[in-house]
Amino acid sequence: VNEFQLIAQLAPTLATAPHLIVGAGDDCAVIDVGLAAHWLLFKTDAVVESVHFEAEADPAQVGHKALARALSDVAAMAGEPLSALITLALPDRFSTAWVQAAYQGLNRLARKHSVSIAGGETTRSPGPTLLSVAVVGRVAKDRCLLRSGGQPGDALFVTGELGGSLQGRHLTFQPRLAEAQWLARHGSIHAMIDLSDGLAGDLRHILDASGVGAELRAASIPIARAAKNAARAGSAAKPPLLAALTDGEDFELLFSAAAADAVGLLDAWKNRFPNLRLTCIGKLTTQPGLRLRDHQGVRTLDRTGYAHFAKPSS
Amino acid sequence: VNEFQLIAQLAPTLATAPHLIVGAGDDCAVIDVGLAAHWLLFKTDAVVESVHFEAEADPAQVGHKALARALSDVAAMAGEPLSALITLALPDRFSTAWVQAAYQGLNRLARKHSVSIAGGETTRSPGPTLLSVAVVGRVAKDRCLLRSGGQPGDALFVTGELGGSLQGRHLTFQPRLAEAQWLARHGSIHAMIDLSDGLAGDLRHILDASGVGAELRAASIPIARAAKNAARAGSAAKPPLLAALTDGEDFELLFSAAAADAVGLLDAWKNRFPNLRLTCIGKLTTQPGLRLRDHQGVRTLDRTGYAHFAKPSS
Repeated sequence: VNEFQLIAQLAPTLATAPHLIVGAGDDCAVIDVGLAAHWLLFKTDAVVESVHFEAEADPAQVGHKALARALSDVAAMAGEPLSALITLALPDRFSTAWVQAAYQGLNRLARKHSVSIAGGETTRSPGPTLLSVAVVGRVAKDRCLLRSGGQPGDALFVTGELGGSLQGRHLTFQPRLAEAQWLARHGSIHAMIDLSDGLAGDLRHILDASGVGAELRAASIPIARAAKNAARAGSAAKPPLLAALTDGEDFELLFSAAAADAVGLLDAWKNRFPNLRLTCIGKLTTQPGLRLRDHQGVRTLDRTGYAHFAKPSS
Repeated sequence: VNEFQLIAQLAPTLATAPHLIVGAGDDCAVIDVGLAAHWLLFKTDAVVESVHFEAEADPAQVGHKALARALSDVAAMAGEPLSALITLALPDRFSTAWVQAAYQGLNRLARKHSVSIAGGETTRSPGPTLLSVAVVGRVAKDRCLLRSGGQPGDALFVTGELGGSLQGRHLTFQPRLAEAQWLARHGSIHAMIDLSDGLAGDLRHILDASGVGAELRAASIPIARAAKNAARAGSAAKPPLLAALTDGEDFELLFSAAAADAVGLLDAWKNRFPNLRLTCIGKLTTQPGLRLRDHQGVRTLDRTGYAHFAKPSS
């Protein structure tokens, strides 16, 4: 039993209550705290040294990343973040300058989005530095976007470019808060998620939650320059398309929208966000599973993704 | 610079926003999310193996403790907890049974207080097991109890009995939620805190936040049997009164109330909570500092507490 299987086993046993609108399994928990038109969003996310960042990483960027990951989850619900608490587990010989710089990164991003840092906790740990962020936010009840709303026939969109994030972008990315809120107001968006595990993995979450399948057009998937450069640099690197599908840590938005609105949505987006690509990469289908269409035909991507990717489907 | 000094340095630099009613420095952060009569309470609290619990501890009790600590902070504001998120950092060779049992402890306490476990995160860590709990709750705006409301002349009260918690009670204590909510409705309570660092240390927080001093009556301080037994068992143990003042992890309520209401409050409490002691242990004073009155006179307790406790004041 690995930790993901274990958490899947535990999820149905978790204590629930009438105020819990959406529990474990979406980007944020959704809670009814008694507001007339809004729900509360609630999320925690941790980064661990040598797992999510290297010891040599710029601490201001580590702080930025820790908060940006949690804000990206609020964005994925089309929400507005309000306040964050920071839990810092420090090894015995911690550097004061490192902590101060990490907080500079946290504070800078927080101010950019009018988020307060409401405190938190610092604890000693015999282990590596761990930085956990808890965030609360708010979303209009009629604009909250879940993973479960996808419908067969929906067009699939992704913001930005994918792959190669670990070469630097994972420490500096901007959570797509304004973009997601705009989408919830202007598009017929049915399902949304932020890309943390990679396009193939996170699309699975939408498919599982919505009970649909998907077909991606390989030629449409926007591949980041970093992924192309990596492929050029060494034979051990993933092919760029595979990197875009599986690298993870992109923190872009993946969403499905009514197909009839797709062209209008792309036009309006270009007008509003001229500096950020929005790409239609495929569609949701009644046929279950995840398929990739390229010039050779249609391949099936199974759940292990990487291993089976190179084999054409029968 | 130790981690407490560092956090004190960082606190004034934290990003703030108009919705933040109370930030770092009280038991919970207090946030205005737009409710007419309530504020949101927001808190995180972590327990770390070999710091807050031993590897051999009953995992169900570890789960219980992790949530109970966070709920105790909600109690200290006279709030009602709603929902919790669990962050679990697991070493590479984690035990499935340990995690399942920890969640049993979490779920049992959550259900007792109608708290939902809304999900969370499990991450691998090269370090020790770490369990961080984020909690949101609610409190009526006119009943929210801060550390800063203490007034000279107030009577000081404590629930339960203090000292010796590490002999077992720290893993099994019950957060005083019903008691705190009752106090906020029925008493003229001015300031409240939960006892995590020990009576002497946590009372300092009320004194600092309220700009007052205090005088404790040594003979009135309720000492737990565990602290008395420990003192009897070995010469290396703290004297029982010192244990009650400094052991920490009691998770009882410490509060100040208008002196004129003290007797009525004690009577009403006995009627409502016959199985939990409530003790008046002293008073708040205009004279700053913390003093202890016993049959020999009045001693000053300085900030280092332990070291200077045995010396009579000049």
